[in-house]
Amino acid sequence: MNSKGIKVAIFGGSGYGGSELLRILLFHPNVDLELVTANEHAGKHVGAVHRNLNGLTDLNFAAMPTDISELKEIDVAFFALPHGQAIDLIPKLVDGVKAIDLSGDFRIADPDVFKRYYNLDHAGDIQSDFVYGLTETNREAIKNAQFIANPGCFATATLLALAPIVKSGMLDGKVIVDAKTGSSGSGAKPATNTHHPQRMNSFYAYKPFVHQHRPEIEQHLRSVGTFENDLVFMTHSLPVSRGIFATCYMQTTVNLTNEDALNLYKHFYSESFFVRFADGSPDINWVKNTNFCDIAVHADGKNVVVFSAIDNLVKGAAGQAVQNMNLMFGLDEKTGLVFPGSNP
Amino acid sequence: MNSKGIKVAIFGGSGYGGSELLRILLFHPNVDLELVTANEHAGKHVGAVHRNLNGLTDLNFAAMPTDISELKEIDVAFFALPHGQAIDLIPKLVDGVKAIDLSGDFRIADPDVFKRYYNLDHAGDIQSDFVYGLTETNREAIKNAQFIANPGCFATATLLALAPIVKSGMLDGKVIVDAKTGSSGSGAKPATNTHHPQRMNSFYAYKPFVHQHRPEIEQHLRSVGTFENDLVFMTHSLPVSRGIFATCYMQTTVNLTNEDALNLYKHFYSESFFVRFADGSPDINWVKNTNFCDIAVHADGKNVVVFSAIDNLVKGAAGQAVQNMNLMFGLDEKTGLVFPGSNP
Amino acid sequence: MNSKGIKVAIFGGSGYGGSELLRILLFHPNVDLELVTANEHAGKHVGAVHRNLNGLTDLNFAAMPTDISELKEIDVAFFALPHGQAIDLIPKLVDGVKAIDLSGDFRIADPDVFKRYYNLDHAGDIQSDFVYGLTETNREAIKNAQFIANPGCFATATLLALAPIVKSGMLDGKVIVDAKTGSSGSGAKPATNTHHPQRMNSFYAYKPFVHQHRPEIEQHLRSVGTFENDLVFMTHSLPVSRGIFATCYMQTTVNLTNEDALNLYKHFYSESFFVRFADGSPDINWVKNTNFCDIAVHADGKNVVVFSAIDNLVKGAAGQAVQNMNLMFGLDEKTGLVFPGSNP
Amino acid sequence: MNSKGIKVAIFGGSGYGGSELLRILLFHPNVDLELVTANEHAGKHVGAVHRNLNGLTDLNFAAMPTDISELKEIDVAFFALPHGQAIDLIPKLVDGVKAIDLSGDFRIADPDVFKRYYNLDHAGDIQSDFVYGLTETNREAIKNAQFIANPGCFATATLLALAPIVKSGMLDGKVIVDAKTGSSGSGAKPATNTHHPQRMNSFYAYKPFVHQHRPEIEQHLRSVGTFENDLVFMTHSLPVSRGIFATCYMQTTVNLTNEDALNLYKHFYSESFFVRFADGSPDINWVKNTNFCDIAVHADGKNVVVFSAIDNLVKGAAGQAVQNMNLMFGLDEKTGLVFPGSNP
Repeated sequence: MNSKGIKVAIFGGSGYGGSELLRILLFHPNVDLELVTANEHAGKHVGAVHRNLNGLTDLNFAAMPTDISELKEIDVAFFALPHGQAIDLIPKLVDGVKAIDLSGDFRIADPDVFKRYYNLDHAGDIQSDFVYGLTETNREAIKNAQFIANPGCFATATLLALAPIVKSGMLDGKVIVDAKTGSSGSGAKPATNTHHPQRMNSFYAYKPFVHQHRPEIEQHLRSVGTFENDLVFMTHSLPVSRGIFATCYMQTTVNLTNEDALNLYKHFYSESFFVRFADGSPDINWVKNTNFCDIAVHADGKNVVVFSAIDNLVKGAAGQAVQNMNLMFGLDEKTGLVFPGSNP
Repeated sequence: MNSKGIKVAIFGGSGYGGSELLRILLFHPNVDLELVTANEHAGKHVGAVHRNLNGLTDLNFAAMPTDISELKEIDVAFFALPHGQAIDLIPKLVDGVKAIDLSGDFRIADPDVFKRYYNLDHAGDIQSDFVYGLTETNREAIKNAQFIANPGCFATATLLALAPIVKSGMLDGKVIVDAKTGSSGSGAKPATNTHHPQRMNSFYAYKPFVHQHRPEIEQHLRSVGTFENDLVFMTHSLPVSRGIFATCYMQTTVNLTNEDALNLYKHFYSESFFVRFADGSPDINWVKNTNFCDIAVHADGKNVVVFSAIDNLVKGAAGQAVQNMNLMFGLDEKTGLVFPGSNP
Repeated sequence: MNSKGIKVAIFGGSGYGGSELLRILLFHPNVDLELVTANEHAGKHVGAVHRNLNGLTDLNFAAMPTDISELKEIDVAFFALPHGQAIDLIPKLVDGVKAIDLSGDFRIADPDVFKRYYNLDHAGDIQSDFVYGLTETNREAIKNAQFIANPGCFATATLLALAPIVKSGMLDGKVIVDAKTGSSGSGAKPATNTHHPQRMNSFYAYKPFVHQHRPEIEQHLRSVGTFENDLVFMTHSLPVSRGIFATCYMQTTVNLTNEDALNLYKHFYSESFFVRFADGSPDINWVKNTNFCDIAVHADGKNVVVFSAIDNLVKGAAGQAVQNMNLMFGLDEKTGLVFPGSNP
Repeated sequence: MNSKGIKVAIFGGSGYGGSELLRILLFHPNVDLELVTANEHAGKHVGAVHRNLNGLTDLNFAAMPTDISELKEIDVAFFALPHGQAIDLIPKLVDGVKAIDLSGDFRIADPDVFKRYYNLDHAGDIQSDFVYGLTETNREAIKNAQFIANPGCFATATLLALAPIVKSGMLDGKVIVDAKTGSSGSGAKPATNTHHPQRMNSFYAYKPFVHQHRPEIEQHLRSVGTFENDLVFMTHSLPVSRGIFATCYMQTTVNLTNEDALNLYKHFYSESFFVRFADGSPDINWVKNTNFCDIAVHADGKNVVVFSAIDNLVKGAAGQAVQNMNLMFGLDEKTGLVFPGSNP
């Protein structure tokens, strides 16, 4: 195969984040996949594990290198590992290798907050080299970043729904976000809450008031505009495989019509290809397997509700990570990401 | 078959409400099912249409009588017809026949509100003979009622979650209800939004700010306690067959602990067999096919969230209707309704 | 609670078989549940584990007794344990205690076949005291049985579809059974093949030519009639929670019309309340949560196809076990089992 | 937009076949989409109807031209219309315009058989200009074809499973095909059998012995090799959106090992990129949204079972149609079709 340009490694290729990175990067016109690790599958064909990729790649899984500080010939490394692993690994990378971390390890700037929500010690100085990778609100910083803390899936859906109104300065009082996720958000490892006989008929809430995406959302909103508001963030589980839907309840300082509110959002996202507007309501059915975020906005006097829908594994993880990589390497952010979802 | 006591007619036996009434009443120890109508199935075995009942009844569907004012020998009639039909029929019933209406025709006392949300003219004087059939909050009135306006499914889940705190007088400010329903809530007739290839991967919102259950909820809360609060009521569609889940966001005038909040609810429902409390969160999986409402309560200072889960066709329709019938005829409200859900 | 008659123990109450026994036996008019074991849940409320039963029983789980030979005051014990445990336990029961085993431990008479398919040593002499519990074909033996080997779920659906034609003597040549099961057939423990994100869109075959229900089916068919035919038995996994559907392809020695074939089946099952006949095809949707087996029969010359549908956990496990218990204690086989499925 | 080469029209762009053609052809590097019709949506944006394509095309739906004989500037027309419409339209096309018909109108050569299964009169002389578009078995004829009768979805899955063994000459006796399809196979129009509350828990058989794909399968097998065998073809409905799974039971004249059988198939498909081999069993989960057919082969003496899985809308309809178009225009058959399915 001829070199296409960017030499990429994926650390953690067996989970859903890694699988989705593979699905995207194997078809990216500017990427050479040099290395993909998965200790439990080392030596196996990628297509024997992720059977959707059978016939589409000759790549084999490798074991995690014992010393990643010796890795050369890599331009960028994606980390799709469980929380708490990248925090040790990324500081050891060879100088000049860029990194995009899909875990929560570098998302929180405040060490105390990080400790409280993740029960891990903070990364220290290297943290300041990380740029928060919500592409639509942080493009310029991402273009120049060495390291990216890729946003959480819930945080992505929520922030895209809240950012325009926070930026506008019209937000007034408490914000309530009622968020729902598909079962792939719990990862590729079987567990009680993703056991099919139960999950297929389930809907329930979890982690009331204490989900770790709440401080991530608050921190980033403070960089988008003034945000000193109370945020209630509530997560629920949906009986679908993929998709996040966030219903965001806000109040504004002035009365808005539907049209006012919609114009505010359309203006904010006028340069953002991956944000689309839906009549009435978005539907996770129409964004599944894509990098799109579909949004609808409704105002009733000072009450505003914004709906946003994404695919948790694409715009909520691997797709946005690639969108950020594109910017970091001077490419159009859409490169390798303009593929349609399915109907039905 | 020997007479068991209460002579019952069901008007509208082909939809999901009627089907569920049949499933319950055929096994009710004090009921004789005298008549069940379904014009499009007149003459057919009930078990040929509702194949879950095949082998369990000899009953045939009848056509709607041309003049229900001539119906005698009936103690109580259930109306499970589309909105706008019972409002014409119930006034014609023979004196003394009780009626329980599962539609929205008699739920709204105010003619203007009714006109705005249902686009129908109000019932007039007979409306004042109707008692709102939320059993847990209205038992004494129901016992003496001639006519029952059975609550809507969303309204049931929401009211059971809100009533204790409204009664307590501690409610402060805006209430936000994020409600989600399974596809059977759209009825037995195929439609675009319940087309399986799309619905199985869907989650979306509908009728933002204008759902007809909002005034029903507000009206009843005003009878439970003082309720002058702003209510935002938002409905969503889940890709399950049965179940409603309501996430209710409230604020209290005083700080509450989880325990305080839970005790308030447990006390309120101490006499209510069909309200159960769940650790963490209820799950529609555990209430499906039953008359239970599972509730969990969480407080974080002055923020309170209450989760409630019901089966939309049982506690949200036919089951509550039978619970009300039991009270109207001096029976234990549990009669014929103590059956378990399935696991899984 | 007053004594209702039969004193029952359930060994293995935490799995789906045990859960379903509880759901049925708690409401059985002639049963006192004396003991239900689940080591990992010992001391917990049954309703805290099987949340569908919350509020419906005060029973707690017990640990497995260290010596079941000391158990008295029990009339019958149900064993809902993983394969290989009942084979050690049942021989130790106090004389006179009846036992119904839901595992495969006592289903196979031939020690070599048992060893090959289950990799276990045969029970020895006590095996001859076991009666195969396919109620519809074995009623008289069941009435007098001390011990019951309750049929496998696939075997039940298949045998009810094949027995009438085997009995008729018209069967000719190879029989092919294409069987499909819901995910609860894999049990309550999460595993890769029941991981919701994958399973919800899956359909696949497993164990081609080697499923352990094949010898069970062959053995019982030889007791129903002459059966020396080749049997191809193929199992598949469905993305539903409950239900088995078996499509059975046969050839007859003579030409049959649809009517001939149907009459043969209706005659065979004329005394069997739990076998129902469906027009066209049965549907697992209409038997879920019930003890019914729905059957349809089609003939095209000498080609005959029979469809059968059951709930794998009820008629395929716990329901049939209770049906057998009823007969063993002189009760009507329907006792405690006449409950309808849901619609939808 | 610059011209990319092949000028394409789609007649019938609102159904699932048309939607899938759009999803593929909009990204095909050699195609210019000139016209897509949908009478009920004429004038609307394609992305407003097929919301997965929102933001990905500026195309609008057009009304069906009143006289398609006047259409020029089109190289090839796809017909994704209900059965019975293309049979009238295709004969009117301008000379030289190629056509690919996704309906059943031109699949059956024998007028009597066609009349019996489709209740339509045969196309007459033009029929002999049609080539059956099962790409893997018919490549050379397709390359030179003017008109293509694109295979049915069930027929595709079945034929790909049967062709190698028919070609080998080892087939002996009756063939039984137990086929299962997802709900999108019933089309985009809501109907009773695709009503979500029912379908999500359903599995049932339909059209026993009389499905219209049976003669299509038999006819094509006779062109692949000698096929005078009895074929039992049985169709079932799965509760998934996409996917067909066929379990094919055959007997061979000689004993085969698993390896023998697999080698026979691998050899037959050695030049076929879109046929992949699965260990154990294929799974519709791994082919959904792709043009792949996954196959597994198992032999037990003279009993052979072959499993095949496809996406009914891609390899079973639109994808195969584009594969055929590629060959008709001298392109690599993979062009525009090498995209991965999703995991999960």
